[in-house]
Amino acid sequence: MSHNSFGHIFKFTTWGESHGKAIGCVVDGTPPMIELTEKDIQLWLDKRRPGQNQYTSPRNEPDTVEILSGVYIEEKVQYTTGTPISMIIYNKDQKSGDYDDTKEKFRPGHADYTYLSKYGIRDPRGGGRQSARETAMRVAAGAIARKIIPKIEIKGALVQLGDLKIDRSKWDNNFIDENPFWCPDKSSIKNWEDKINSLVAEGDSCGAVIEVVAKNVPVGLGAPIYGKLDSDLGSAIMSINAVKGVEIGNGFEAVSLKGSENGDEMRMKNDKPVFLSNNSGGILGGISSGQDIVVRFAVKPTSSIKKERKTIDKSQNDTEITTKGRHDPCVGIRAVPVGEAMVACVLADHFLRNRAQIGS
Amino acid sequence: MSHNSFGHIFKFTTWGESHGKAIGCVVDGTPPMIELTEKDIQLWLDKRRPGQNQYTSPRNEPDTVEILSGVYIEEKVQYTTGTPISMIIYNKDQKSGDYDDTKEKFRPGHADYTYLSKYGIRDPRGGGRQSARETAMRVAAGAIARKIIPKIEIKGALVQLGDLKIDRSKWDNNFIDENPFWCPDKSSIKNWEDKINSLVAEGDSCGAVIEVVAKNVPVGLGAPIYGKLDSDLGSAIMSINAVKGVEIGNGFEAVSLKGSENGDEMRMKNDKPVFLSNNSGGILGGISSGQDIVVRFAVKPTSSIKKERKTIDKSQNDTEITTKGRHDPCVGIRAVPVGEAMVACVLADHFLRNRAQIGS
Amino acid sequence: MSHNSFGHIFKFTTWGESHGKAIGCVVDGTPPMIELTEKDIQLWLDKRRPGQNQYTSPRNEPDTVEILSGVYIEEKVQYTTGTPISMIIYNKDQKSGDYDDTKEKFRPGHADYTYLSKYGIRDPRGGGRQSARETAMRVAAGAIARKIIPKIEIKGALVQLGDLKIDRSKWDNNFIDENPFWCPDKSSIKNWEDKINSLVAEGDSCGAVIEVVAKNVPVGLGAPIYGKLDSDLGSAIMSINAVKGVEIGNGFEAVSLKGSENGDEMRMKNDKPVFLSNNSGGILGGISSGQDIVVRFAVKPTSSIKKERKTIDKSQNDTEITTKGRHDPCVGIRAVPVGEAMVACVLADHFLRNRAQIGS
Amino acid sequence: MSHNSFGHIFKFTTWGESHGKAIGCVVDGTPPMIELTEKDIQLWLDKRRPGQNQYTSPRNEPDTVEILSGVYIEEKVQYTTGTPISMIIYNKDQKSGDYDDTKEKFRPGHADYTYLSKYGIRDPRGGGRQSARETAMRVAAGAIARKIIPKIEIKGALVQLGDLKIDRSKWDNNFIDENPFWCPDKSSIKNWEDKINSLVAEGDSCGAVIEVVAKNVPVGLGAPIYGKLDSDLGSAIMSINAVKGVEIGNGFEAVSLKGSENGDEMRMKNDKPVFLSNNSGGILGGISSGQDIVVRFAVKPTSSIKKERKTIDKSQNDTEITTKGRHDPCVGIRAVPVGEAMVACVLADHFLRNRAQIGS
Repeated sequence: MSHNSFGHIFKFTTWGESHGKAIGCVVDGTPPMIELTEKDIQLWLDKRRPGQNQYTSPRNEPDTVEILSGVYIEEKVQYTTGTPISMIIYNKDQKSGDYDDTKEKFRPGHADYTYLSKYGIRDPRGGGRQSARETAMRVAAGAIARKIIPKIEIKGALVQLGDLKIDRSKWDNNFIDENPFWCPDKSSIKNWEDKINSLVAEGDSCGAVIEVVAKNVPVGLGAPIYGKLDSDLGSAIMSINAVKGVEIGNGFEAVSLKGSENGDEMRMKNDKPVFLSNNSGGILGGISSGQDIVVRFAVKPTSSIKKERKTIDKSQNDTEITTKGRHDPCVGIRAVPVGEAMVACVLADHFLRNRAQIGS
Repeated sequence: MSHNSFGHIFKFTTWGESHGKAIGCVVDGTPPMIELTEKDIQLWLDKRRPGQNQYTSPRNEPDTVEILSGVYIEEKVQYTTGTPISMIIYNKDQKSGDYDDTKEKFRPGHADYTYLSKYGIRDPRGGGRQSARETAMRVAAGAIARKIIPKIEIKGALVQLGDLKIDRSKWDNNFIDENPFWCPDKSSIKNWEDKINSLVAEGDSCGAVIEVVAKNVPVGLGAPIYGKLDSDLGSAIMSINAVKGVEIGNGFEAVSLKGSENGDEMRMKNDKPVFLSNNSGGILGGISSGQDIVVRFAVKPTSSIKKERKTIDKSQNDTEITTKGRHDPCVGIRAVPVGEAMVACVLADHFLRNRAQIGS
Repeated sequence: MSHNSFGHIFKFTTWGESHGKAIGCVVDGTPPMIELTEKDIQLWLDKRRPGQNQYTSPRNEPDTVEILSGVYIEEKVQYTTGTPISMIIYNKDQKSGDYDDTKEKFRPGHADYTYLSKYGIRDPRGGGRQSARETAMRVAAGAIARKIIPKIEIKGALVQLGDLKIDRSKWDNNFIDENPFWCPDKSSIKNWEDKINSLVAEGDSCGAVIEVVAKNVPVGLGAPIYGKLDSDLGSAIMSINAVKGVEIGNGFEAVSLKGSENGDEMRMKNDKPVFLSNNSGGILGGISSGQDIVVRFAVKPTSSIKKERKTIDKSQNDTEITTKGRHDPCVGIRAVPVGEAMVACVLADHFLRNRAQIGS
Repeated sequence: MSHNSFGHIFKFTTWGESHGKAIGCVVDGTPPMIELTEKDIQLWLDKRRPGQNQYTSPRNEPDTVEILSGVYIEEKVQYTTGTPISMIIYNKDQKSGDYDDTKEKFRPGHADYTYLSKYGIRDPRGGGRQSARETAMRVAAGAIARKIIPKIEIKGALVQLGDLKIDRSKWDNNFIDENPFWCPDKSSIKNWEDKINSLVAEGDSCGAVIEVVAKNVPVGLGAPIYGKLDSDLGSAIMSINAVKGVEIGNGFEAVSLKGSENGDEMRMKNDKPVFLSNNSGGILGGISSGQDIVVRFAVKPTSSIKKERKTIDKSQNDTEITTKGRHDPCVGIRAVPVGEAMVACVLADHFLRNRAQIGS
């Protein structure tokens, strides 16, 4: 019942505060004999790393991951051994001075007030445990998850920045990795750049919608009733910092459709069952249908902004706060690889859970 | 890691198929010395019961719940004893003849295909385990959950039927229980009635958006990181049949706001900290802030409809299907008490989890 | 984290009090397409049933189990469907009058005092939840567990009654089912009968040691560190009422051996690795070695006896108590099928857990 | 369902191999505002440390623990914050050359064969994950557990070394910490020294029985049915390397007693309920009775010995093995602080579990 663990058979536990000595993760339940080195994980961490472009905060974290256990080299190849894989990233860049004001005052939209109210104490340096820095370890766990389900491709993209949605008819998967927004639509870039630049100038921020698609998912992952893929994806995504909503397939849009429009019809094609649409987002009754799994989620605007805001301090006096230091104008951009990682973890876990009960 | 259990300390396990002998639920972790009789549970079950008005299917299920264990009468008052509370509802009205066609064919939008693909077998009578009938036991568990957190008020309402949204400025809590839609806006009723009547005439269906609000929630429930209230509410709500999306507070709408608009500012008022808005929906960093918790979710249109649809059968032949029998034109209406129950279960569980770690 | 559930992937939850309406069990995680009827379960329940011979208490419980969910008949064969299997036994013989004295007084050796101290309330009728009646549902769950691992043979025997140990050189597996003690040694029977008869005459009781052996266990079940077979067997056995000790292989006897005597040596035989002894009881490092798994456990003497004993009552007055009603002179006899069932449940769970991580 | 985690609310996860970079532990669920520094943990680690006397192996591990997260200094005092506490011990002394022979051959009594059979790979350096080195992290977790239940005193002692039992009438608690065996009986020391010296001379080993007593345990910890204190202690103790048996109270001895001798009678004394004996070992029906909790367990003789033994190698050839390197003649001596730690963890977890359900 750990509050800091995710998953059931493929299970990971994260620990660490933003400005403590290190952050880390213990991944348990990984099958043995999977090739795994730090490079396999660093690859995805670099994707998430803040400071890699002008639209994410310039904190200069190398975020170098080290594997401390659970692997063994046999004939020059490093394999997982089936024992827990411990990973660590030492915190190097800790300008905690930047955050001094936040020790005494509660930042609007942040968890400063709720942490202190609940625990009676909190580590305020860089947001402590509540910082999005924790998500680095999700990305690390997700890198291992991907190796358990190597045939499944998981890819995220930003489909809305503030109030600016992409033109879905112009979706180009190849373009996603070629721009700093993970945007699949080239025609949106100019407007998005303008928006971000203007927010930076104002000292303000905006939200984003991310869509993660998993391809080549076999039929049969997930389980009724409380082990539904929808339920576990919902839990996984809503656990990411700043996420306020999640939907599967056509999501909230399904509400306005008629049943005759929404239910995906079926036909045989080349001797295989196919669906004629994918409103369900690849999940029926909590179980994967073999179609692409489509998850979309809303990230609220960054709460740490330069604009002055009303708040109270620890001594319960009215005051104002202005957040200094490095902050993303849109934290949602960095949530793309995190969303991918969480989807990977859910699918890897369900792959093993399905193998347990069904045997294949 | 049970697929059929929900919760951690307050934990319930449901069982049963739509047209089997009975459905049931075992609730574990309830504190002792809580007054509890069947009446406390029946009250909420009656609210969910299909057939109670013309807009839900006329299946005549009395749905009489019986408590089989976990209570004891002392000086004429029946109390919980701290041992598991087993509840059962016998299935009486089982016109399984109505569903004969669905034994061989997969209904679009239903889990027929995924269940059979995963398990190699399925109980097709009335949808078997995949039927929304299971949600009756969630309502039963929710009734007990409410007694653990008696000060918290949890109330759901339908805020959108198909494409028809309520006028939120006309929200009247008292009106919710006075109409068959759990609609808080009197001015929406006429249009909604017309919509439902026209769907029934067409043999079609529509979706709905439900909003559940929990009042008087103390500060401090929920826990970082994977025990966030958001995460557990996301999981709870997405496990309900036909739900395709969930959001907390202003949810997807937050994306289009600026950080300076979205973060809820604070002020002292009568010596107490207050928030000047509730965009966060009462949760910050996964922990309740003391504001109202606001959860909204999308229910897709009923998949069992009279309109003919393309599908395949178990022998992999193309065919068409028309669902006969009793079905709701909008299954979302009945999801209102189910959503309330799941929110109650999450909050009761977190109340106990918080007491474990924090001690009060 | 349910206190009333056992197992992880193969998981069961029991409920019910000795003299309530019924007792029951929900078994989750069973693979689909396993043939299963009530007969498969009743078989083992009958073995446990009290009153079947003069050495267990004459309570006339038919203990007829009914399956309420999780199975479906296809082409005249009833199969598991992969959904939860709910089982129920209605309580018919409820002479609660026999126990009246125990409502007010705490029986020495019983949990009357601790239940009331913990919960502030308890169902005293027949011991309520603390009664060994609960173990019937373990036997029912064990019957399903056996069907998941059909090649593994699990057999229990009584190897010590009070201070009378069997002569292990005379062990005859076939004799176990032919006598009311589950004794494998014909030469012990006469002395055991005399002992029991004399205890009955005195209104007293004695303990027993039970040994359960599992044959044909494949290499590789169990997992380090906290998922060791030893650990889960220890937990399973120690959860049985009245059990005070458990050991694997040569157990406490190993202490007096030298390392050179205790470690089981290996040799190749017919191209297969064999062990030259089985001091380890078939488990090395928490993982099955392919040898027979041997578990032994101590059951204390029945606490409900006719002899007068000193105690206090609920109002904290000194008093004496004499337990009336039906009680076994040696509750350990009835623990044999319960021990077998728990071993079956542990092995079935680990079979599925191993399949999850390892894939075969 | 992690194989490498223990506990429910107070939950710890260990990782690391004997000769890898480090070993570590993540402790989750600790209440906030508990004073905690490395010193509080090092204290107990030093007690367990091998090489501290001539009767445990001379491996020179400083075993210096470092806390990486979960604490924060406020006004010069370091407190727990309620977030996960990550602890690490770097492996410094790694003479893996000593173990070379064991890479190819399976040591009798060790898990070499079962690990390789299960996982297809294993880290053979110093026993890898199967090494007793892992138990250092249990001791670290136990140190934190003790701080959650500060009033409960937990103390272990060696009560049997090989075939030499202590004279219980000479039990002296103060003497336990004054001798290298944790022996409570001064009169046993000379014989034990002789035994160990002679085993060292032979290159052989022996087993031990350890008794752990917990004093000042409140009434009401533990829970029926599968959350019994007995069950969780059984699981905890049997998860320790080389443990082959566990018993509570008079354990296996209870079998030979009559019910009238075994059940602990009660009387009022100074207006408080007292028991007139403690055969139950402080637990009735799985719930603590307020008496001392008494747990005893058997540790088998060290399997790594210098005497030549028959075995096979990875290529399935018959061969002989002689274990070189540093090894304890009686690994049971070092198990004393480990047993204490596991009892502390079980009690701390149940203290929090009880507070969750009961509220005090």
